[in-house]
Amino acid sequence: MEGVDLNGKVEAGAVEELGGPTNPMVSPLLTDLYQFTMAYAYWKAGKHLDRAVFDLFFRKNPFGGEYTVFGGLEECIRLIANFKLKDEEISYLRSVMPTCEDGFFDYLREIDCSNVEVYAISEGSVVFPKVPLMRIEGPVAVVQLLETPFVNLVNYASLVTTNAARHRFVAGKSKTLLEFGLRRAQGPDGGISASRYCYMGGFDATSNVAAGKLFGIPLRGTHSHAFVSSFMCLDEITDKALRSQDGSRTCEDFVGLVQSWLHKLQLADSLSGFFGETNQSELAAFISYALALPHNFLALVDTYDVMRSGVPNFCAVALALNDLGYKASGIRLDSGDLAYLSIQARKFFCMVEKEFGAPGFGKMLVTASNDLNEETIDALNKQGHEVDAFGIGTYLVTCYAQAALGCVFKLVEINNQPRIKLSEDITKVSIPRKKQCFRLYGKEGYALVDIMIGEDEIPPKINQGKYCHRFRK
Amino acid sequence: MEGVDLNGKVEAGAVEELGGPTNPMVSPLLTDLYQFTMAYAYWKAGKHLDRAVFDLFFRKNPFGGEYTVFGGLEECIRLIANFKLKDEEISYLRSVMPTCEDGFFDYLREIDCSNVEVYAISEGSVVFPKVPLMRIEGPVAVVQLLETPFVNLVNYASLVTTNAARHRFVAGKSKTLLEFGLRRAQGPDGGISASRYCYMGGFDATSNVAAGKLFGIPLRGTHSHAFVSSFMCLDEITDKALRSQDGSRTCEDFVGLVQSWLHKLQLADSLSGFFGETNQSELAAFISYALALPHNFLALVDTYDVMRSGVPNFCAVALALNDLGYKASGIRLDSGDLAYLSIQARKFFCMVEKEFGAPGFGKMLVTASNDLNEETIDALNKQGHEVDAFGIGTYLVTCYAQAALGCVFKLVEINNQPRIKLSEDITKVSIPRKKQCFRLYGKEGYALVDIMIGEDEIPPKINQGKYCHRFRK
Repeated sequence: MEGVDLNGKVEAGAVEELGGPTNPMVSPLLTDLYQFTMAYAYWKAGKHLDRAVFDLFFRKNPFGGEYTVFGGLEECIRLIANFKLKDEEISYLRSVMPTCEDGFFDYLREIDCSNVEVYAISEGSVVFPKVPLMRIEGPVAVVQLLETPFVNLVNYASLVTTNAARHRFVAGKSKTLLEFGLRRAQGPDGGISASRYCYMGGFDATSNVAAGKLFGIPLRGTHSHAFVSSFMCLDEITDKALRSQDGSRTCEDFVGLVQSWLHKLQLADSLSGFFGETNQSELAAFISYALALPHNFLALVDTYDVMRSGVPNFCAVALALNDLGYKASGIRLDSGDLAYLSIQARKFFCMVEKEFGAPGFGKMLVTASNDLNEETIDALNKQGHEVDAFGIGTYLVTCYAQAALGCVFKLVEINNQPRIKLSEDITKVSIPRKKQCFRLYGKEGYALVDIMIGEDEIPPKINQGKYCHRFRK
Repeated sequence: MEGVDLNGKVEAGAVEELGGPTNPMVSPLLTDLYQFTMAYAYWKAGKHLDRAVFDLFFRKNPFGGEYTVFGGLEECIRLIANFKLKDEEISYLRSVMPTCEDGFFDYLREIDCSNVEVYAISEGSVVFPKVPLMRIEGPVAVVQLLETPFVNLVNYASLVTTNAARHRFVAGKSKTLLEFGLRRAQGPDGGISASRYCYMGGFDATSNVAAGKLFGIPLRGTHSHAFVSSFMCLDEITDKALRSQDGSRTCEDFVGLVQSWLHKLQLADSLSGFFGETNQSELAAFISYALALPHNFLALVDTYDVMRSGVPNFCAVALALNDLGYKASGIRLDSGDLAYLSIQARKFFCMVEKEFGAPGFGKMLVTASNDLNEETIDALNKQGHEVDAFGIGTYLVTCYAQAALGCVFKLVEINNQPRIKLSEDITKVSIPRKKQCFRLYGKEGYALVDIMIGEDEIPPKINQGKYCHRFRK
């Protein structure tokens, strides 16, 4: 049995390199009013400098699951590394707390977090209920101000990271997972945070350009239904020339080349019965997209009819690109029976590969989107499907299955005296005292249990037994 | 039958007065990558200036309900009033779209929304599925870039406004509703937006100081359990003096005054059996809070035991304040059986009023919090309770019952040609054409129905019948 210390102190050096919070709206005022009224009461009672210890923890894993992934620590540290009330913020506080003495506002003007110590588990770790994710020590009035923003910054970050990790688990390691949630997220930085923390939780890329720029997350995207339906017919395409991938030649009539491929597909024995006339505005859209982005042609095929129009149109364009040395990326399905359609599309690609000797055509990437979540991916896996990549939005980023994590911030010690919060609800009783926390590993290298002991107790030792009390879930 | 035009044009004058988006993270990059790849494809095809018309609408009311309240319009207008890509943003786009021609980035550098027209229903209106909340007209490449941020800004705003309105409906007009959700919201501006839009949806105040400052929302708050448990005993209180409300005299030993009142409460016949010894650290906390904020004494009474400690301690402090001309505000209950405890507390207050002739004591404000939502408030109403104000957090701000609204942004016309998106899923088929929308009112002044007609059709007239087709829900 090997012991690993869960609570590392966040060092000042690391803090000084950090800039302010990613979202400029995060400021010392992003807190509940009562933190300021309490600060005033502490100040009036001369208790504001009392040394307090708070634990930040949650009581229950989300999504009915057995683990949580800790996110949000960096943003908490960015806040305290730059914690300072501005004059206009003090003026506002004075206006909402008009009976408070001037001296209090002078005190507020001076406070920062230089006397605050934070001990935390590393961001991105798997964590469990009741074990503190962070221990925050400092003057009670200041640490109390941090309660609301810290809990705000950790709750959603940890929740959505955990949600992403769960989606990764159900999808399997081999699938590509794309976060497409910006439009349905709870506000702008709901979207930006979702992109950031889903990447931390195991996603491969996002569609969110702002998040890509802020955090260096790979970006992915295709086109929308509107793009397809914005085209009328092939006559709209005036510049029909496309240079080959190696730059050696130019096809002057790429539209004609696509049309000839569509005709060959229509005549192929193995494909007969699959489709007849395809939608020409869709074809025009696909050709335009390929002319613009021949290196990265990925088409949304469900605007009109997946198998009778979208897939054959895509194949005609992909085969024409192939003639010029480009390799099309694949298709996206955004409606209908994704298991069935992905299998049908795969069959079609394999037949095209066989019929026309188009190399790798059978392995064309199939991306699926449309209100996917853990359950629907699991159901697709059980049915059997040919999807290579999942684009997941609403259910992922809003954490639809459970939209909140219940992180709390509880006083456990003040001036070296342990403190407890009792409650008629037994699950709400806090565990007093400053704690040391350890994760114990078995010989095989697997984690066995997290334990909490008092600050003055002897830490667990390797190859030595340890009795522990198990908290009820 | 009277007709009212639902779609007002947002006038340029109104736009110019607005500053940028409330959240500085809202920028032209806060969009999906495919909006830029499509913009490039439009540009390459010479179609980028095609005049497009998009409808922004939702397909289904949230929370299984029959209405939605429209929010988020102002933020959309703030975005387009200041829509300009910065050089560093263009550089980033160039790095993620390396095969695109230079001319495209020159084009991006020039674009703004001066050619974009927005027609919208007024923010705060009750709205229904399928009727466009906004119609956006302009060059297809530019309007397409707006899709993601517009839908992002409207979705959560409308969802949480609707949620707030539903909570107001179930709580009734006479109750005070307080939004306490910042710590559990989906990120910092999830919290700030929740405060803003809950106020729009009918809440009275928020605990969120940043939202109070930004939007002028009234602030409310008390103190936390940590404040209570941070006190040990009465000896901690060194400055015991309190000046009377009118300034005419000073009570030198307010602690002693409270203790004498507690003693009187313990001896009162009508209150015998309710409680014995109360928690002295709680009493110290209440006294300290009252000494700091005597004008606004509201105590959280469930840290140890509501009826055996919290309420009697509160009454002792409130009666002492009463002696000095102050009127205590009331109590907050944050755990246990809120219906039962509120009724017991009310009984206790009424008995105190009767026993000691304390005027208005029976009407002491009782605030309840602790994971409240529509259902729990409805259940409390059915049981009977004595709660005057509800503090609502998690379920309200995360829209826990349904964490996303499905607003979409669909192309309905391009270059005066109607466009439709077909789908294997019938509910996803869009309604083509530029529309006029009207809400028709009966003689009694109640709204009867919203209708959509084509741009060239004759608007409904007062006292004239109109045939309409009803869309399936």
